[in-house]
Amino acid sequence: MTNTMNVGLVGYKFMGRSHSNAYRQVQAFFPDVALQPVLRTVCGRDTEAVQTFADQFGWESVETDWRKLVVRDDIGLIDVSTPGDTHAAISIAAAQHGKHIFCEKPLANTLDEAKQMLAAVQKAGVVGMVNFNYRRVPAVQLAKKLIEEGRIGKVYHWRAVYLQDWIMDPNFPLVWRLQKNVAGSGTLGDLGAHIVDLARMLVGEIASVTGLTNTFIKQRPVLAETSGGLAAAGGQQMGEVTVDDAALFLARFANDAIGTFEVTRFANGRANYNSFEINGSKGSIVFNLERMNELNVLFSDDPPEVRGFRNILTTDGTHKYLSAWWPPGHIIGWEHTFTHGVYDLLNGIAKGITPDATFEDGLRCQAVLDAVEKSAGSGAWVEPTY
Amino acid sequence: MTNTMNVGLVGYKFMGRSHSNAYRQVQAFFPDVALQPVLRTVCGRDTEAVQTFADQFGWESVETDWRKLVVRDDIGLIDVSTPGDTHAAISIAAAQHGKHIFCEKPLANTLDEAKQMLAAVQKAGVVGMVNFNYRRVPAVQLAKKLIEEGRIGKVYHWRAVYLQDWIMDPNFPLVWRLQKNVAGSGTLGDLGAHIVDLARMLVGEIASVTGLTNTFIKQRPVLAETSGGLAAAGGQQMGEVTVDDAALFLARFANDAIGTFEVTRFANGRANYNSFEINGSKGSIVFNLERMNELNVLFSDDPPEVRGFRNILTTDGTHKYLSAWWPPGHIIGWEHTFTHGVYDLLNGIAKGITPDATFEDGLRCQAVLDAVEKSAGSGAWVEPTY
Amino acid sequence: MTNTMNVGLVGYKFMGRSHSNAYRQVQAFFPDVALQPVLRTVCGRDTEAVQTFADQFGWESVETDWRKLVVRDDIGLIDVSTPGDTHAAISIAAAQHGKHIFCEKPLANTLDEAKQMLAAVQKAGVVGMVNFNYRRVPAVQLAKKLIEEGRIGKVYHWRAVYLQDWIMDPNFPLVWRLQKNVAGSGTLGDLGAHIVDLARMLVGEIASVTGLTNTFIKQRPVLAETSGGLAAAGGQQMGEVTVDDAALFLARFANDAIGTFEVTRFANGRANYNSFEINGSKGSIVFNLERMNELNVLFSDDPPEVRGFRNILTTDGTHKYLSAWWPPGHIIGWEHTFTHGVYDLLNGIAKGITPDATFEDGLRCQAVLDAVEKSAGSGAWVEPTY
Amino acid sequence: MTNTMNVGLVGYKFMGRSHSNAYRQVQAFFPDVALQPVLRTVCGRDTEAVQTFADQFGWESVETDWRKLVVRDDIGLIDVSTPGDTHAAISIAAAQHGKHIFCEKPLANTLDEAKQMLAAVQKAGVVGMVNFNYRRVPAVQLAKKLIEEGRIGKVYHWRAVYLQDWIMDPNFPLVWRLQKNVAGSGTLGDLGAHIVDLARMLVGEIASVTGLTNTFIKQRPVLAETSGGLAAAGGQQMGEVTVDDAALFLARFANDAIGTFEVTRFANGRANYNSFEINGSKGSIVFNLERMNELNVLFSDDPPEVRGFRNILTTDGTHKYLSAWWPPGHIIGWEHTFTHGVYDLLNGIAKGITPDATFEDGLRCQAVLDAVEKSAGSGAWVEPTY
Repeated sequence: MTNTMNVGLVGYKFMGRSHSNAYRQVQAFFPDVALQPVLRTVCGRDTEAVQTFADQFGWESVETDWRKLVVRDDIGLIDVSTPGDTHAAISIAAAQHGKHIFCEKPLANTLDEAKQMLAAVQKAGVVGMVNFNYRRVPAVQLAKKLIEEGRIGKVYHWRAVYLQDWIMDPNFPLVWRLQKNVAGSGTLGDLGAHIVDLARMLVGEIASVTGLTNTFIKQRPVLAETSGGLAAAGGQQMGEVTVDDAALFLARFANDAIGTFEVTRFANGRANYNSFEINGSKGSIVFNLERMNELNVLFSDDPPEVRGFRNILTTDGTHKYLSAWWPPGHIIGWEHTFTHGVYDLLNGIAKGITPDATFEDGLRCQAVLDAVEKSAGSGAWVEPTY
Repeated sequence: MTNTMNVGLVGYKFMGRSHSNAYRQVQAFFPDVALQPVLRTVCGRDTEAVQTFADQFGWESVETDWRKLVVRDDIGLIDVSTPGDTHAAISIAAAQHGKHIFCEKPLANTLDEAKQMLAAVQKAGVVGMVNFNYRRVPAVQLAKKLIEEGRIGKVYHWRAVYLQDWIMDPNFPLVWRLQKNVAGSGTLGDLGAHIVDLARMLVGEIASVTGLTNTFIKQRPVLAETSGGLAAAGGQQMGEVTVDDAALFLARFANDAIGTFEVTRFANGRANYNSFEINGSKGSIVFNLERMNELNVLFSDDPPEVRGFRNILTTDGTHKYLSAWWPPGHIIGWEHTFTHGVYDLLNGIAKGITPDATFEDGLRCQAVLDAVEKSAGSGAWVEPTY
Repeated sequence: MTNTMNVGLVGYKFMGRSHSNAYRQVQAFFPDVALQPVLRTVCGRDTEAVQTFADQFGWESVETDWRKLVVRDDIGLIDVSTPGDTHAAISIAAAQHGKHIFCEKPLANTLDEAKQMLAAVQKAGVVGMVNFNYRRVPAVQLAKKLIEEGRIGKVYHWRAVYLQDWIMDPNFPLVWRLQKNVAGSGTLGDLGAHIVDLARMLVGEIASVTGLTNTFIKQRPVLAETSGGLAAAGGQQMGEVTVDDAALFLARFANDAIGTFEVTRFANGRANYNSFEINGSKGSIVFNLERMNELNVLFSDDPPEVRGFRNILTTDGTHKYLSAWWPPGHIIGWEHTFTHGVYDLLNGIAKGITPDATFEDGLRCQAVLDAVEKSAGSGAWVEPTY
Repeated sequence: MTNTMNVGLVGYKFMGRSHSNAYRQVQAFFPDVALQPVLRTVCGRDTEAVQTFADQFGWESVETDWRKLVVRDDIGLIDVSTPGDTHAAISIAAAQHGKHIFCEKPLANTLDEAKQMLAAVQKAGVVGMVNFNYRRVPAVQLAKKLIEEGRIGKVYHWRAVYLQDWIMDPNFPLVWRLQKNVAGSGTLGDLGAHIVDLARMLVGEIASVTGLTNTFIKQRPVLAETSGGLAAAGGQQMGEVTVDDAALFLARFANDAIGTFEVTRFANGRANYNSFEINGSKGSIVFNLERMNELNVLFSDDPPEVRGFRNILTTDGTHKYLSAWWPPGHIIGWEHTFTHGVYDLLNGIAKGITPDATFEDGLRCQAVLDAVEKSAGSGAWVEPTY
């Protein structure tokens, strides 16, 4: 007999869909999951819209106020899939009521919020996991394994970009992701958080940074009402873009590796190009999310004659999570990373262990982003602290 | 209020899983589907195993004899996801009882069976659709659209391979796919059917073929019992491999294009490499299933200076089926092609239209495979007939 | 003190330039060559044009009749860089006068000519080498070495294409390469000869073939006068294209490998796409001339987790011929293959050894092409004989 | 009748070979060059070695003291292919004696030297060209043309790396390139100079930078004697590495574009990976020197359905310099960039115009490198000045 975990999801747009899919798929493809998720309640402010969503994805009921959701006895796990400005309030309240928490990234809009969130889950003794989903790309897990096994040797270089192009049109409207009061920051929190998190996971802690941020298009058409979706039709009135369109920074890691980071929404033709390269004393690793089923790896101890980057198709059962899916060569999609995360989350809750990325990981990531913002202001190198 | 369609699935191994997933996902991601599928009953001979599967994928009930399933009044659609030796019997019985049919490829193990199957659905007036799922890769749909719009011009060349490597180990056992009485043929029916179907969809009817088939490893360890899975542990006793390990053939199309086809399970390092190239008077198209979110297209009327194969990432909403999934750059996986197929199938049934690939497509494909086998025997060019 | 070899070159168009460059470069980059080539005389029918060419490439003198050239005492090596219709006459005469011969491919326009050419050099005891220059791409040499060392295991599959697109425009004129009486055949002799030669070198002798040839555009504008160049402006009068625009064939090798071959000048966007893949029991090899500094190699005995095609950049000194050129990562160009050929030729002459491809290789290649033509006519499998 | 230009080359190692080849090849492949170069004298300190080199590459005579060379009346062009510590002295003396100068990059080891060199050629009225050879890769010229024509729109991002791996072995010895007194700097001057120059050519002037430099391996085996070659066998005694192994910096351009730059000799598996990406309001461009015959270009005004990076093979005659070489698809090698440079140089001298990169370009590049070094020391943003 399988144990279950009742889930209450807050948010039903892009992330709400991704998370809902993950809860559904984990049941079918990971039957050994320690706790079967029950799609108990989804919460959103617009009753009709949230009910439609619930029907579509199989949520048993709906709620329109997250404050009511987090106090319910029949909910064991609160899933925070809202924009960043409500992460702290929801998570802290959930923790205070003893709920486990699965929170979208970045953990918070400010370093201070992130600290309070970590304190809240620590005090409550609940699982607090941040959904840095790219940790659970099988190819990224392979990269992690190779590094941990010493196959790449001492890491010298980290080189990461996360490039998008969806707001290059000056008529693209002022959606919530372009408003500091809702989103916290622009590319830095949205995309930078991902590659900082990957850098921390794969290389180690970041000791200091210097960077710049830029807003290429400073005014955009105001929306009639805030939409949770990525795209929206613009109106006549113009409003201020209050976040960064791009952020570039250099880093020194605690272990003496050095790194470059770049995030932008102005890289024409790059839809979702999250790519990194790691160079170590014994080898190199290259990853690109748009070809996320592949990892390129070089071992410098291969004989020179047959040395070259190996294009590893990470689709067979030797790769993490893959035995749950399809035969070799049958690629998985982007959303599968969420299913992997939910699988680890539910197993973690069952065992009383917080899977990575923990809220502490979320906080440390936030501290780096905070340091980049400070450096972008001052022009100096800044050490992340919290 | 949504109408529904009660599904009875026969088979619960690799294809059963893929189809089950599709019925589940179509509900969530294609809410406009004309008929909501109800996962009514899954059928398999091993009660315990099929019940476990039913629990996992959300089938309401199980059945152990397909003969009982096809006569039930509460079933509207029979999904045939069994090995080829039972396609004909199940499909014909289902048609005789007025059920719509969604049948795995290849349609049948012999040309004669395929003819009877087509006759049965025609007589019954039911929908009979063959699941040539690669028709519903968005990149393949783009290829089709470009060809139909004349963007590639007159097609001169078709060049396709479908390469795998999962039976290269001589100790890999004699699974059902290597037995002619169950599988009908080896690579020809399994992989060749796919690329013949794509050729027919994209280029047109095949007028004549010449080819060869080969069995590189002629004896393999016998299995204790036939397993539906792809992989299995071998035993001591050896048995005859009665199907082809590889098949190569040349074709003349009815429209004067010429083509090469190659399928094999002995292409080391090629897990599921289904790739084609089309050269026309105005352009070329290249597709590779292992990077199925991409299509490479060349237009020769581009100015020479900026002429080159365009690597089109088919992940945004301008591409077929994609508005249902994720934002641009967030790739979909292999199984999504089944969801697309089920979506079209259910819409087709609602409208009384049989979506492609129809049973007639299945039959015509079978006729080509049959001609290849004849040619492989005689050494002469053979015209597909049925 | 270095010994020298006086060269007499016949032909000064595309191939004449390539060969002239090779003689010049071998002096500078391969100072250990056993015989320093002396660019003694270049021969062509148009005095003025050939003199201009001689000045440009440093030939000491010119000649307008090859019959005069082949009898001269001061010439030790005759380089046959003319269209195929004169290969036999020049080579046989040269051999009769004791000259070594470096002949462009294909060896001859007919099998019979090729036989006479081989007989002539054998009788005269001179070196007769055919310039199958792609044998001397360093990446191809690496492929050969890996196969010879057994790293790929038993070869199961050969899969080769040589695709071009330079005559797709119906207004492209009737140049000599489209006239059977001059060129012998179309793509078959021009491109097919290359991939048959590579197949023979890498896999082994071809036992039987079945194929088809096609001429997509059957009439083209006649040229005012035959030009040796690839491109030419067309006129008003139309003439018959008497060669194949494309040729496709299947092959059984003597060692039980099977293969596909395709050559065409109608592959839009493929400028000079000479590509092959070899699948063996222990690995696979992929080559593409347009990225000729790279070889992709897979070893199936790599651990599954890190198994993948290695992209080997063949630019460092561990690769054949490369120590003569530049540091790692500094790629070489197409013409370097000719320099490598001339280096081996001159060393061969000094040692009294005929380097591959020998005239016998040229003859065996011709026999395969001849069998393809016969098969294209009869529709049956044909065994190459000579 | 062709005019000539007598060349005196100083240096006969890696760069001396590359330049010698260029003078030889320009005669054969660019017969329209305004001045035919005469390989008059090559200068080096080791008489025997330089004489061997002269024989190999066809230099008429040798000289062992560059001071004697620069005063000779029969020399019109001094080619400075020595390490950076002698660029200034040779160039200034050459200018004072009215010689034109073709100087290897970086122009000088210090900003002050570069200023003096520019002043010297300006005062003398001679041509002073710096050999930033990557300007003359045809694909880079295409990038330049597209940008100048506005095809990419307003440039937002520049992203460049130049990665090598030839000194990763800690036992690799202390060659001259690792000694500040000879080389000036490490990766910054050797590799950074190239990508700064490309950035200036393609995007514009750099307004400010912040960066870091790093020396991963601080001591290495001392060589018995300094070798001009890249590789050398190490000895027992250890010496200090006095240059940077890697340099990373961010830049703001004068036109508001922003950029990242990274150079290193510690990128395992990257032999000579000089790659850049440019993102503009209308498109993007990607280049990689290891595939230097290709340019990837995206135009965002392509219809979404067929929008994607075009892989342009820059081998046909529509591309700059290519009509001199081979037919489409026949790639050129790394050294061809030097031939292109010499072609432009000789034409420039004939017309009295200094081709880019001019000594002023060299100086401006040096100013950026100087600013990076200052920033690496201070941790602050620094504006290049000179």
